[in-house]
Amino acid sequence: MAVKVQWPPHLGARLAALRAAQHKKKLPVLLVNYGPDVSYLTGFEGDDSWALVTPESVWLITDSRYSEQVSRQCPWVRMVVRKKGLAEALARIVGRSRIGSLAAQEESLTVREERSLRTALSKCGHKVALKTAAGLVVPLRNCKDAVEIKLIEQAVAVAEHGFEKLKAGLRTGMTENEIAALLVYEMRRRGAEDASFETIVAAGANGSLPHYRPGSVKLENNSALLLDWGARVAGYRSDLTRMIFVGQVPRKVEEIYQVVREAQQAAIAAIKPGMTGNEVDKIARNIIKKAGYGKAFGHSLGHGIGRDIHEQLSLSPRSTVILEAGMVVTVEPGIYLPGIGGVRIEDDVLVTPGGHRVLSTLPNDIGSARL
Amino acid sequence: MAVKVQWPPHLGARLAALRAAQHKKKLPVLLVNYGPDVSYLTGFEGDDSWALVTPESVWLITDSRYSEQVSRQCPWVRMVVRKKGLAEALARIVGRSRIGSLAAQEESLTVREERSLRTALSKCGHKVALKTAAGLVVPLRNCKDAVEIKLIEQAVAVAEHGFEKLKAGLRTGMTENEIAALLVYEMRRRGAEDASFETIVAAGANGSLPHYRPGSVKLENNSALLLDWGARVAGYRSDLTRMIFVGQVPRKVEEIYQVVREAQQAAIAAIKPGMTGNEVDKIARNIIKKAGYGKAFGHSLGHGIGRDIHEQLSLSPRSTVILEAGMVVTVEPGIYLPGIGGVRIEDDVLVTPGGHRVLSTLPNDIGSARL
Repeated sequence: MAVKVQWPPHLGARLAALRAAQHKKKLPVLLVNYGPDVSYLTGFEGDDSWALVTPESVWLITDSRYSEQVSRQCPWVRMVVRKKGLAEALARIVGRSRIGSLAAQEESLTVREERSLRTALSKCGHKVALKTAAGLVVPLRNCKDAVEIKLIEQAVAVAEHGFEKLKAGLRTGMTENEIAALLVYEMRRRGAEDASFETIVAAGANGSLPHYRPGSVKLENNSALLLDWGARVAGYRSDLTRMIFVGQVPRKVEEIYQVVREAQQAAIAAIKPGMTGNEVDKIARNIIKKAGYGKAFGHSLGHGIGRDIHEQLSLSPRSTVILEAGMVVTVEPGIYLPGIGGVRIEDDVLVTPGGHRVLSTLPNDIGSARL
Repeated sequence: MAVKVQWPPHLGARLAALRAAQHKKKLPVLLVNYGPDVSYLTGFEGDDSWALVTPESVWLITDSRYSEQVSRQCPWVRMVVRKKGLAEALARIVGRSRIGSLAAQEESLTVREERSLRTALSKCGHKVALKTAAGLVVPLRNCKDAVEIKLIEQAVAVAEHGFEKLKAGLRTGMTENEIAALLVYEMRRRGAEDASFETIVAAGANGSLPHYRPGSVKLENNSALLLDWGARVAGYRSDLTRMIFVGQVPRKVEEIYQVVREAQQAAIAAIKPGMTGNEVDKIARNIIKKAGYGKAFGHSLGHGIGRDIHEQLSLSPRSTVILEAGMVVTVEPGIYLPGIGGVRIEDDVLVTPGGHRVLSTLPNDIGSARL
C-alpha cells in the first residue's frame, strides 16, 4: 500500500485557501491546467501536467517524461501517468471517482481543450457537468506568502548581481546582443534558472521602443543604454529597469530621466494597503503629464510579479485592484521620444501591512546612472 | 493619404495560402490571436497583438508599446493602436467594416477570450456570428518556405557553434548551471536571440529525467553529461541533444548509447514524403524494444520545429501525419534508466522532395561523444 506523504506546510496552506475559495464558489472539484498554478499548488516544476483538486485528493496528471520528477518533487500528490491525452486521463479519474460536476478556469482553458474535455467526459460512464468559471488560483497568487517573498528577493538579488558584474565589464563597442548575453550569463552563473523574460538592451535611440529586442547595434560613447531584465529563481521572477549613461548623453534624455525618477519615487512612496491600482498609477502619470510628456508614457505604471512575469494585478489607469499586504508589483514609469531615446526606471515593491518595502536595492539617482 | 506598402513576396505567399484555406473552409474573416501565427503572417515580432485577416485587409491590433515597432517591421498591415482591450478594438473594426461573421482559432483562444469577444461583438452595432474552428494558420506552418528553412539552418548553426565552444571549455567540477550558462552565452554572442527553450544539462544519473533542469550538481570524471539545447534566430528554433562522456562512463550507458544511435539513424534514413509519423516512430521504437529497452523509451520520437519548439506535427505511435517536403522535425529517441542515467540523441531533419536532409552537422558516433 502506498504510504501517504504529508504536504509541506506552505503548500498545505495554499491548498486550504483554494479549497475555501472552491467551497465559497460551490465548485468542489477544480481542474487546474495552467502550469504556474499547478506548480504553485503542488510543488511540481514541469510542464504539460494538470492538477485536479477534489475535497479528498489532489491528482496530478502527467506523462512518462515527468514521472520520476513528480515522485521526487511532490510525492504528496496522487500521480497519474497518462498514455493518451490529458482530457482522457482526467475523464478516467472523474469516471472512477464518480465525480458529478467539475469546474475549469476560463483564463487558461482553450476552446479546443474545453471541447476535448466535453467529449472525453461524455464517455466516462456517467453524466458530468462541466463549468468554466473565473480562475480561483490566480487571485490567491496575488498575495505572496513568506516562502514566495524569499524567492522573489533571491530573484532580485541575482538580477542585481548580474547587473553589477555587467556594469563592471561594460565597454563601448559591445553590441546589444553581447551585453544581453553577458547579463544573462552572470545571472545564471549566480544560480538563476534563466532570465525571467527576454532581456531588453536598447542602445541610444532604440530606448524609445519599450519592448525593443537586442540586436547588433553597438554601445557608443555619449549615449544612453536602457536595460530591462530579471532573473528566475525556483520559479519566481524579478523585473528591473536601469539606464546607463556613457559619456555625455543628450540633455533631453537627462531631463526626462529626472521626470521619470520623480514620478517613480512619488508612486512608490504612496504604496500601501488600501490604495487602488489606478490611484498609484495616477500619481506617477500626473507628474509626467505636468512635465509635458503625458503622451510619451503610453503603458501602465506596473504589474504584479511572481511565477508569471505579468501577473493578474496591475497599476494602470483602469486598474481597480485594492492593494493588500503580500502583493509584489513593479513600478516602472517611462518616457519615450522616437528618434531621441527613452527612459524607464523600474523597481520591485512589496506591499506590507504598514506600507511597502522596495525589494530592489540598486540606486537609481542620476549620478548612479553614469558609467 | 496613407501610402499602401507592398507586402514582401514570402509574406504575400503565406497570406495567399491562408486566404485560400479560409475560402475553402468558408471562413472569410479570421482572427489570428496566437503570437507565432501573427509573426508568421505579418512579420511583426512583438507580443499581445492580434491580426484580423479579411478578404480586403490585414489589420494588426496592438498597443502603444509596439506602435513604433509595427511601423518599422510591417508597414504593410493596417495598424490599430488600442487604448482598451483587444476584444473591444476588434469589435470596433468589425463594426466599422460591417463584418457579419468572424472565425477564431480554437487552439489559441481561451474560454475567457471567447466570452470577452462575444460581449464586445454584441455591442458593435450589428449582429455578428462568431465561430471557433480548428486553426488555419498552424497547418500552413508545418511546411516551411525557403526563408524559414534558412532561418532554422542559422538557428542550428548557432546552436552547434555554442556546443563546440562549450565542449572546448568543459571541465570536471563545473556545475550543470554553469554549463548551461556558458552554452547559452556562446549562442547569444554568436547572434541567437535566446535559447530556443530551457536548456537541459543533466550530469550522471540525472540524465534519466528527460526534462531535467540544470542545478548545482557538478560534472564528475567517469560520468556522462546529457545536453538538450537550441538557439532562436529571428523567431526560428533549433533543438539538439548530445551526450558528452567524461572519462570511463558506466558500461550500461555505452550500451544504450549504441542502441539509441542505431534507432535514430534508422528512423532518419526512412524519412521521406509519404511516410507517416507513426511509421517513422515505429522504426526507432522497434530497435529499442528488440534491445530490451521498450519501456525505457516513454516519449515520442520527434516533433515539428519552427517558430514554436513543439509544433503541431509529431513522430509518435499515434501520429497520423503524412510527411511532406518542407516539414522540419526532430528525431530524438532515448533510453532512461533511473539511478543509472539516460541517453538521448537528437537531430533536426528537413523533409525534401527526394527524401530528407539532416540540418544538424555535429557527429554523433560514440567516439565523438567522448570528451
